[in-house]
Amino acid sequence: MKNIYLLGATGSIGLQTIEIIEENPDDFNLVAISGYNQLDELIDIASRFSLRMISVKNEEDANVLKKVFTETTIVSGDEGLKELATLNPGDKDGILVNALVGMVGLRPTIEAIQIDRTILLANKETLVVGGHLIQELLEQHKSKLYPLDSEHNAIWQALNGEDLASVKRLIITASGGAFRDLSREELKHVTLKDALNHPNWSMGQKITIDSATMMNKGFELIEAAYLFHIDMDRIQPIIHRESIIHSMVEFNDNSIIAQMAQHDMRLPISYAMYYPKRTPGLTQPLDFGTIKELHFEEVDYERYPLLGLAIEAYQQGGSKRAVLNAANEIAVSLFLENKITFLDIENIVIDAVHNHKVIPNPSLEEIIAIDKEIKTQIRFEYDR
Amino acid sequence: MKNIYLLGATGSIGLQTIEIIEENPDDFNLVAISGYNQLDELIDIASRFSLRMISVKNEEDANVLKKVFTETTIVSGDEGLKELATLNPGDKDGILVNALVGMVGLRPTIEAIQIDRTILLANKETLVVGGHLIQELLEQHKSKLYPLDSEHNAIWQALNGEDLASVKRLIITASGGAFRDLSREELKHVTLKDALNHPNWSMGQKITIDSATMMNKGFELIEAAYLFHIDMDRIQPIIHRESIIHSMVEFNDNSIIAQMAQHDMRLPISYAMYYPKRTPGLTQPLDFGTIKELHFEEVDYERYPLLGLAIEAYQQGGSKRAVLNAANEIAVSLFLENKITFLDIENIVIDAVHNHKVIPNPSLEEIIAIDKEIKTQIRFEYDR
Repeated sequence: MKNIYLLGATGSIGLQTIEIIEENPDDFNLVAISGYNQLDELIDIASRFSLRMISVKNEEDANVLKKVFTETTIVSGDEGLKELATLNPGDKDGILVNALVGMVGLRPTIEAIQIDRTILLANKETLVVGGHLIQELLEQHKSKLYPLDSEHNAIWQALNGEDLASVKRLIITASGGAFRDLSREELKHVTLKDALNHPNWSMGQKITIDSATMMNKGFELIEAAYLFHIDMDRIQPIIHRESIIHSMVEFNDNSIIAQMAQHDMRLPISYAMYYPKRTPGLTQPLDFGTIKELHFEEVDYERYPLLGLAIEAYQQGGSKRAVLNAANEIAVSLFLENKITFLDIENIVIDAVHNHKVIPNPSLEEIIAIDKEIKTQIRFEYDR
Repeated sequence: MKNIYLLGATGSIGLQTIEIIEENPDDFNLVAISGYNQLDELIDIASRFSLRMISVKNEEDANVLKKVFTETTIVSGDEGLKELATLNPGDKDGILVNALVGMVGLRPTIEAIQIDRTILLANKETLVVGGHLIQELLEQHKSKLYPLDSEHNAIWQALNGEDLASVKRLIITASGGAFRDLSREELKHVTLKDALNHPNWSMGQKITIDSATMMNKGFELIEAAYLFHIDMDRIQPIIHRESIIHSMVEFNDNSIIAQMAQHDMRLPISYAMYYPKRTPGLTQPLDFGTIKELHFEEVDYERYPLLGLAIEAYQQGGSKRAVLNAANEIAVSLFLENKITFLDIENIVIDAVHNHKVIPNPSLEEIIAIDKEIKTQIRFEYDR
């Protein structure tokens, strides 16, 4: 029986984690959850489990929950996330699922590493922005950090039983996003509605846009470099329209191991929760008689400039990655608010990264300050 | 440094094994080789190494070799193969590569298992015909049996680090052979020349014909069942024209791990020789920008009756598999001699298997007797 501490319970990854826990009550015990401000959803989840702790954003919401769940510790704000991430420090089989969205997810990862807790990571900012801090901390602590993202989870599966030293290259597949068949010229005229129409699946708005610009894939390259301790020049993105192969590992003998599955996040979540054992789950099998064809195309870096920018930001290191993430977050928001065009997203992010003077090894406080500064700057310029 | 004892040195697998040894003189030492009657090739190989033993088919050839290599033990016949397979029984790092073609390969595998020697297996008859004997012996001895065949080698790689108990299905890929685009009706008129024209690579004549009838794939299903201790109904063949994915494993969570590489037997041979470590070798990397597409089709068992027959022969067990192999061997010979049509191959094998009264658990002697009897019978009927 493993205890699950779940940050971001009301998002897509959070809800699917809960689904797996409910399907397997003998294997997992949900101990604590956090949510932003979706009180109804939090109350619904909390009434199905005997929770030790619930964390919400605002004290006001916390007070409501305190009246409903008198046996449960209710906490709030950043301090609440910290309490949740470090609850029961002696629980060696405990697992923190970090499914928070945004910069807020970085600090709880750090705190959980410090109590040697196993972390299942869906929060992108943890590694995209804080990768250097996380890597250093993981070397000092016994904590294990496992990826929930389907691409990194695929690489983790492909590496099973293999020696990291024999890895030659990671091949990360990309759907190509909503606009994969459009030229740069055609991109000038795309609308918000077009951009939200992902070819393979439905996701949140932010990640759907990040998929169309391939900023998302750029973030994944950075995450992969930190997760698997591999140089960026040995990580290759490739466009694979069907998204059946979730990623691959090429070894030094030029043998490639690929992981394939349906598009169903419950598979990587379940794999990580049960690791090192596999268990029958909720994901349907693949049928190659139906699939019939898999396609591959090289990535055109001129077509997807943010992908190259991510590589550049990683290689320049330090605070550049914080700027990349912050600028992109605000640019996508502005696009979703219909204040800028699709191609403006790229221009804003490129300008921000190029104009930033790098701080080599920024602390958590410096990262947070840069994040705030960049976001405020861009908002100030465009938000009127 | 591992000592290599090589059965079938002058065939394709044998020569590629020698190529790997010569490329890696610090890792491997070629100790002994066998060949049928290609004296020139054997002399050529033997003059590049300091061999302890050479085994040939005939005493006459042995006498020639004795005069050329006075420091080397020269042996001949079945007894010679036995001596080679069991040379230096105390050599715990020794590896027997069994690349013999035909029934003659079964006995040396048995003898090597009995001295706990690691065996790299390319000889199909060992498992197709003798699988039940081999499986029993492996349970009693410490010997490891590893596959060189690209499909089984791929499954072995995909299983690396995984628990066999979590395997749901093995998916074995098949090119479909030279006639994959022809109907049964069109098959009536194909010639020997057509049949020898394999779409993906050039191999020996026998295996090219076995590929066109999919008898070869049927044999591989039987081998996989024995190698990976899995029921036949959990092994699925699938047509994959490009032969880039060499095979796949589906786990109980419906995740699939696939192994891909160029068509180059030096990769599986090298993987097996170096196992459990991977080493840069002679095989070129895959380039997905060039590959562009992978295709899959379900297998039509009416189109390929020998595939279904192999499954049937495996399930009925015992001596049926010996009949399947013997009848096919003679039928293919008759076709190569232009004495029967392509579709006659299937009819001869189907008739032989169906007419045979099964012996449940045949001994090696019984297998050899059945093999001889079936071959003589069919030869007698058609060879005039």
